[in-house]
Amino acid sequence: MMKIDILTLFPEMFAPLEHSILGKAKDKGLLEITYHNFREQAENARHVDDEPYGGGQGMLLRAQPIFAAVEQIAAVKPRIILLDPAGRSFDQAYAEELSREDELIFICGHYEGYDERIKSLVTDEISLGDFVLTGGELAAMAVIDATVRLLPDVLGKRVSHQDDSFSSGLLEYPQYTRPYDFQGQRVPDVLLSGHHEKIRLWRLEQSLRKTYERRPDLLENCQLSDEAEELLKKIKNELDRRSD
Amino acid sequence: MMKIDILTLFPEMFAPLEHSILGKAKDKGLLEITYHNFREQAENARHVDDEPYGGGQGMLLRAQPIFAAVEQIAAVKPRIILLDPAGRSFDQAYAEELSREDELIFICGHYEGYDERIKSLVTDEISLGDFVLTGGELAAMAVIDATVRLLPDVLGKRVSHQDDSFSSGLLEYPQYTRPYDFQGQRVPDVLLSGHHEKIRLWRLEQSLRKTYERRPDLLENCQLSDEAEELLKKIKNELDRRSD
Repeated sequence: MMKIDILTLFPEMFAPLEHSILGKAKDKGLLEITYHNFREQAENARHVDDEPYGGGQGMLLRAQPIFAAVEQIAAVKPRIILLDPAGRSFDQAYAEELSREDELIFICGHYEGYDERIKSLVTDEISLGDFVLTGGELAAMAVIDATVRLLPDVLGKRVSHQDDSFSSGLLEYPQYTRPYDFQGQRVPDVLLSGHHEKIRLWRLEQSLRKTYERRPDLLENCQLSDEAEELLKKIKNELDRRSD
Repeated sequence: MMKIDILTLFPEMFAPLEHSILGKAKDKGLLEITYHNFREQAENARHVDDEPYGGGQGMLLRAQPIFAAVEQIAAVKPRIILLDPAGRSFDQAYAEELSREDELIFICGHYEGYDERIKSLVTDEISLGDFVLTGGELAAMAVIDATVRLLPDVLGKRVSHQDDSFSSGLLEYPQYTRPYDFQGQRVPDVLLSGHHEKIRLWRLEQSLRKTYERRPDLLENCQLSDEAEELLKKIKNELDRRSD
């Protein structure tokens, strides 16, 4: 079972984690989440933030309530995660790494900033991307969601994360469901052929094409089969001819 | 006022948008959010998903309920946004672009996938990053949060997003608040000097140093002042000497 502790001034913001796959993971006993409002740990009631030394706008989270809240958590060797736009970029490999841990502690900051000394407490500074959120809460939820769905038995047998974008290193091929004709847009005929090998090849080609057109950077770190390498060569030739 | 419509099977997941800055923006009349559970638009009750053509695991969202839900929204010239890991990467410049729009519609997918023809309806496919979430809801909330805080009058006068990481193109300098000495860790003396010019230069240097060490890629697209260019040269020399 994975144990997650969340330090936040807004525990009620975490309602999304009660839904969907994550709610089910908790019901199945695969996941335990505890919220800690570190306002309760502040030495003086509610004194969680203060003005920055050296001047400046906004209020910074103080170190003391965060240190006190972490000390209260009985954790053996947790990863202690701070959400910060200057942190290491979160990606699928990072989610896989976190999914192998037993205990994660998330510290959710404040959009106005926090005392630098809080960082001496953490093992991981994670950035969700090159954008600024009002607080760490939404970023923490995204990291938790991406991580927990990789735990064994969370997604169940019917679906698997092996088919995800990024698991193979490629973007996903297009998918279609009924009806065959939707407002004049038809499902590609190969998908109705019943010819499994042709369908597999079409999907592989579509994945390669989409990845090459949208995210060629992903192909650089990707282990392709000989078959996929051949297909990719064909796609590159075709697109190069078109752009001539 | 910005108008946001959200298509989702889980409207109750959006509780976080009622809190913090976003809740205040709604209270001030700067933002209006409407939720549309497109399950109600499905031709057959609850028939929102179906099996993929050509075989495969999982169920795909059908096009019909999504098209019907979008048609019901009276919007003049909205951006229609689909959250998808294969989309354009979301970043601060993208948030600024969206913050200049009057109407945004978000379509929240399903982790198992959706009918490709839904894409013919959208103006923007947005990816939050190279990771997979169980649904589009958390990604939509992050995009909304990053966008809405940039609207005029949302953050208020006390703080401003001009100081954010990425607004200047650089990562933020470290900040400190009381006490001066926390468990033996002291605030850098310059911040107590009262010397505004020295403090400004120290902060600029810290920003440049952090950005150079952690995210040198950001410096490539950054318009630096002559003063900052000089400082950066000094930092580079110093770090190069250290690594020799």
